[in-house]
Amino acid sequence: MKIKVINPNTTASMTAMIAASARASVAPGTHVDAVNPTSGPESIESHYDEALAAIGVLREIEAGEVEGYDGYVIACFGDPGLLAAREVARGPVVGIAEASMRTAGYLGRKFTVVTTLARTVGRTWDIAVQYGVAEACSGIRACEIPVVELERDPTAYASIRDVAQTALVSDGADVIVLGCAGMSDLCTRLQTELQVPVIDGVAAATTQVEALVRMGLRTATRGEFAAPPAKLRS
Amino acid sequence: MKIKVINPNTTASMTAMIAASARASVAPGTHVDAVNPTSGPESIESHYDEALAAIGVLREIEAGEVEGYDGYVIACFGDPGLLAAREVARGPVVGIAEASMRTAGYLGRKFTVVTTLARTVGRTWDIAVQYGVAEACSGIRACEIPVVELERDPTAYASIRDVAQTALVSDGADVIVLGCAGMSDLCTRLQTELQVPVIDGVAAATTQVEALVRMGLRTATRGEFAAPPAKLRS
Amino acid sequence: MKIKVINPNTTASMTAMIAASARASVAPGTHVDAVNPTSGPESIESHYDEALAAIGVLREIEAGEVEGYDGYVIACFGDPGLLAAREVARGPVVGIAEASMRTAGYLGRKFTVVTTLARTVGRTWDIAVQYGVAEACSGIRACEIPVVELERDPTAYASIRDVAQTALVSDGADVIVLGCAGMSDLCTRLQTELQVPVIDGVAAATTQVEALVRMGLRTATRGEFAAPPAKLRS
Amino acid sequence: MKIKVINPNTTASMTAMIAASARASVAPGTHVDAVNPTSGPESIESHYDEALAAIGVLREIEAGEVEGYDGYVIACFGDPGLLAAREVARGPVVGIAEASMRTAGYLGRKFTVVTTLARTVGRTWDIAVQYGVAEACSGIRACEIPVVELERDPTAYASIRDVAQTALVSDGADVIVLGCAGMSDLCTRLQTELQVPVIDGVAAATTQVEALVRMGLRTATRGEFAAPPAKLRS
Amino acid sequence: MKIKVINPNTTASMTAMIAASARASVAPGTHVDAVNPTSGPESIESHYDEALAAIGVLREIEAGEVEGYDGYVIACFGDPGLLAAREVARGPVVGIAEASMRTAGYLGRKFTVVTTLARTVGRTWDIAVQYGVAEACSGIRACEIPVVELERDPTAYASIRDVAQTALVSDGADVIVLGCAGMSDLCTRLQTELQVPVIDGVAAATTQVEALVRMGLRTATRGEFAAPPAKLRS
Amino acid sequence: MKIKVINPNTTASMTAMIAASARASVAPGTHVDAVNPTSGPESIESHYDEALAAIGVLREIEAGEVEGYDGYVIACFGDPGLLAAREVARGPVVGIAEASMRTAGYLGRKFTVVTTLARTVGRTWDIAVQYGVAEACSGIRACEIPVVELERDPTAYASIRDVAQTALVSDGADVIVLGCAGMSDLCTRLQTELQVPVIDGVAAATTQVEALVRMGLRTATRGEFAAPPAKLRS
Repeated sequence: MKIKVINPNTTASMTAMIAASARASVAPGTHVDAVNPTSGPESIESHYDEALAAIGVLREIEAGEVEGYDGYVIACFGDPGLLAAREVARGPVVGIAEASMRTAGYLGRKFTVVTTLARTVGRTWDIAVQYGVAEACSGIRACEIPVVELERDPTAYASIRDVAQTALVSDGADVIVLGCAGMSDLCTRLQTELQVPVIDGVAAATTQVEALVRMGLRTATRGEFAAPPAKLRS
Repeated sequence: MKIKVINPNTTASMTAMIAASARASVAPGTHVDAVNPTSGPESIESHYDEALAAIGVLREIEAGEVEGYDGYVIACFGDPGLLAAREVARGPVVGIAEASMRTAGYLGRKFTVVTTLARTVGRTWDIAVQYGVAEACSGIRACEIPVVELERDPTAYASIRDVAQTALVSDGADVIVLGCAGMSDLCTRLQTELQVPVIDGVAAATTQVEALVRMGLRTATRGEFAAPPAKLRS
Repeated sequence: MKIKVINPNTTASMTAMIAASARASVAPGTHVDAVNPTSGPESIESHYDEALAAIGVLREIEAGEVEGYDGYVIACFGDPGLLAAREVARGPVVGIAEASMRTAGYLGRKFTVVTTLARTVGRTWDIAVQYGVAEACSGIRACEIPVVELERDPTAYASIRDVAQTALVSDGADVIVLGCAGMSDLCTRLQTELQVPVIDGVAAATTQVEALVRMGLRTATRGEFAAPPAKLRS
Repeated sequence: MKIKVINPNTTASMTAMIAASARASVAPGTHVDAVNPTSGPESIESHYDEALAAIGVLREIEAGEVEGYDGYVIACFGDPGLLAAREVARGPVVGIAEASMRTAGYLGRKFTVVTTLARTVGRTWDIAVQYGVAEACSGIRACEIPVVELERDPTAYASIRDVAQTALVSDGADVIVLGCAGMSDLCTRLQTELQVPVIDGVAAATTQVEALVRMGLRTATRGEFAAPPAKLRS
Repeated sequence: MKIKVINPNTTASMTAMIAASARASVAPGTHVDAVNPTSGPESIESHYDEALAAIGVLREIEAGEVEGYDGYVIACFGDPGLLAAREVARGPVVGIAEASMRTAGYLGRKFTVVTTLARTVGRTWDIAVQYGVAEACSGIRACEIPVVELERDPTAYASIRDVAQTALVSDGADVIVLGCAGMSDLCTRLQTELQVPVIDGVAAATTQVEALVRMGLRTATRGEFAAPPAKLRS
Repeated sequence: MKIKVINPNTTASMTAMIAASARASVAPGTHVDAVNPTSGPESIESHYDEALAAIGVLREIEAGEVEGYDGYVIACFGDPGLLAAREVARGPVVGIAEASMRTAGYLGRKFTVVTTLARTVGRTWDIAVQYGVAEACSGIRACEIPVVELERDPTAYASIRDVAQTALVSDGADVIVLGCAGMSDLCTRLQTELQVPVIDGVAAATTQVEALVRMGLRTATRGEFAAPPAKLRS
């Protein structure tokens, strides 16, 4: 089985880290490639960034169909381009936000998302509603570290841990969801220190794609997710 | 007051019709320009089309900021790029879906949307939920006429009227919302024949922008809709 | 176009202020009259007051139909008598609560209402649910200044501003809605000081009526809002 | 224990029937008086009627406080004036809509309301939402018999039964709620013929008031339902 | 009328207290028996306890059908076995959680539940949603006193009162619901001291069963709550 | 990795079929055992059956903890005993209803559940709400074939297919969820014939447990799902 994990931003170091997280949880025999678009924003922290990034994601899906992948992961917590990608890909496409937030439902009563900038909180609530997990979401809290600083800022781990700790105490959360693919390398350490389940969306989405492929399940092509109507695109 | 109405698709004849609808309802002294992107899909009937069209909308907003508009209308029923546009524009930005569906709330108990293709129904429900109008929405019904056929197909009016009639009888709707900017020239005739309020989103959004500008109201810049963080965009 | 703005309480000084607010935002050529019932409560701060005031509103609507108005505004934040008024009036009727809370949806992610007495908070949530805006409402906060004191109490402005400030910080609101027609003269000053959109329902409702009239839209008469059945009323 | 059952319309024959229904289910020692206002609409079939009727209800509650009642029933399915009445009365006040729809929750999975005119359906959904029973409500169906015709029209029973039968088959309802106090004398016959629980709100509300009084429970006076602020009411 | 009140745990002293609470509010002529299973957990503080206790409740219902009871109360705040009991009993079955939380709706705007251990809060929210009362529920707060300690711990009353006091101030509650049958003997004292309605579910459920029996209402047998299909049960 | 799949009923032939379905989708190296309790109902078609079956499930979990399993599947569509099982097991526990209904979210817009008897529909809606999937659920339709007849009745496949076909046409579903573990052997054939994704909960839950174990995720033990308090259980 070949899975293509798409980092929607153009930061190659983040793509490498995402690759590692995805590969760490797959079964023997599952091959994972991680890529990023060559053009687009270096990180995704606004609706504007997300609109630009969606184009890059779709180009990678289109290429992936030629390359012969069985399924795809969109590795940015806003799941940019997800529904459009489902129209284009033959195999399943899973976003890291939907996968991590649905996975939380198997593990506890309430999860809080720890995200980067507060300005993305509204968008995250929107998709939480869309995915049916808003009732289970006890909070979306920002650490106010920009995406590209996550790997550079030596205080990042401590900041994220402190925000998560606050969520456990103040929100009544019993599960933590990491709200950025760039946090996936911190997952194990956080889980060990916090002693609650901490979910990395990259692993959650990649194992979900694996499961869907193994069950022979693909996106419905009856209606909304059929291939987009062919038309003039100038 | 200068308002820029953006048709997100590239079909110029539709842009002309949208211009006429927008101008028909504004107050004396309000100047309306209607434009469309030079590149992108000729019509928007899938998540894929919408992702592509959003880029064109954002380019028009960015140009509009230089051109000095007081506010903007996004004239496609999926409101593509709406939240991103709010980050970019200084003045208010209103989508025709949000404007028409919220306007329905002032006029009756339940509205049904008459849209083009059934494959867009899911997306329309998503934004109805986001805009808080899902409870008031008694149905979203497709006439199965593609967007570009609306102006060519001589049976289009009758098909739309029949779908609306079904909505009044079967859904208990007392208001009809036209689910495509390309239907706006049919609004008056439908309202006269059906004897219920029929809402054209182009008019609803344009008069809404007018009202916001006149009240001195602009998009909040505290948090989510602040200008997007400057960053490398390769 | 002639719009009748009805202050549901009997305090004439408030009616004068409401008239000024309504006139400040309308387009050239729109004529606004502001009135209040001659009998009823001097202010509306309970369900009991609201029940009494609804009668006065309906009497003014009935008179307005003879006087030849094109549309009506109900200028009290509980929107007393709104649905009944729609059965009676030929033209559109808009309440200031529904107009201001729906208008907030065009401007930001979350709004908090700053109201007068805490005892009205429950009623305001009820109508927020009814209007579909409860998800977007981040709070309803009372300044505990009775309606009639708003114009007399020299600390009123500061109290309202402080409550609004708390809403921005604690509720995550990015828009403020003024929860009483008697606050409409404070709107511009608050917006300037708080640097967020502040919505006065009187302006929002009056410009909404203007827009509806200009679009040729009237209340649905198919079903719920048809004229009330004629009957013995002893 | 003395309970005052208020028929909000002015039709004395309906008041007599309501009295009989209320008395049929109370415990030994509970005294029931049924009254109606001397002025107001003869039946309540619109928002307009309801606004007028609320005044009559409040006058009866105010009189009842002098007369020394322990609790009150508002015997019209729109529960007109209910929240205002709670501000005025010392003892509990229960509406027949809230009582019957909450009672249904103890008996089955889904209830359908059989009401008089279709124009009242929207209002009934509004209060179903307010009372928290909308999820359990499988439908609100009209028999299109005006309230005052219920006691005159010899086909009324058969029409109501047929509507209820349709609800059982098409809505999946397993409980029927009678949506008008004027149907309360048909309850037993309907239940026998339909072989499902059929709830008469008059009985449900009266026994609920009994239970509240016996438990020593009164409306909260902390906040919203405290006595209305004293003020000039011209 | 004969009502069987079932304490689902095996603590006889609690059964005696429940009997007293139930008997204190019933009408003359209503006979109440209170029982508990002979096997099962001594208190119910986990999903695990609840699963075990449900079996005991069902055995008592089955016995009650032979003994000839008119209706049943399940006197544990998780309402264990409630829906299964409705399939087995001919007469009505009411749980103390559903009865107390629905009763709150007649008395105020918002209720907070004061429960024993925090670990039961999630389950209580689940049933609040199921009963349609989640919107009216302003909080579920634990006093962290285990069930069996309620009658032994001399500080129990003060702890519960303090939690309730916090609920009134911080949650905006105007009604308190006691979240454990073992608190029913504290109800009157709490209500007197807190000056808000305090609801004991044992009284609320028992008077509700009385009312249902007096109205001739039984659980629907059309569909879900018909007798369980006969089958091999090894 | 060792997973224990628990069939909550006592029908061994169904357990064998469940084992086959579970094993068909797991990765190399994952060992699956399927068991059923020795006592309890032969099939689960009522709340009563479900209460009895939960005890058997818990006994199997308790045994499994001694036997050393990494995770558990509860293979009955009502997910009996699921929350209690999470308190008892160290590793993850997944029910087939939650897994299949959440999996549907990755594949299409709307799913309909095809279940056995109509009497279970209410319970299925309850858990759909609890799992956050009610908005995505376009229907729950019964084929009216009892569980134990699924393997004996030669018309079972055709009946289920016809119900699914109706769901696609009438509900607008684009995904089908099989509402009984006893249907899992029909999944591939149905998917091939219907040309939409058809989800077997046994496979969905088993691969979900695999994924959770591989990610090192276990049920939260902070709060609700901590081990049940030790206590006297007579």
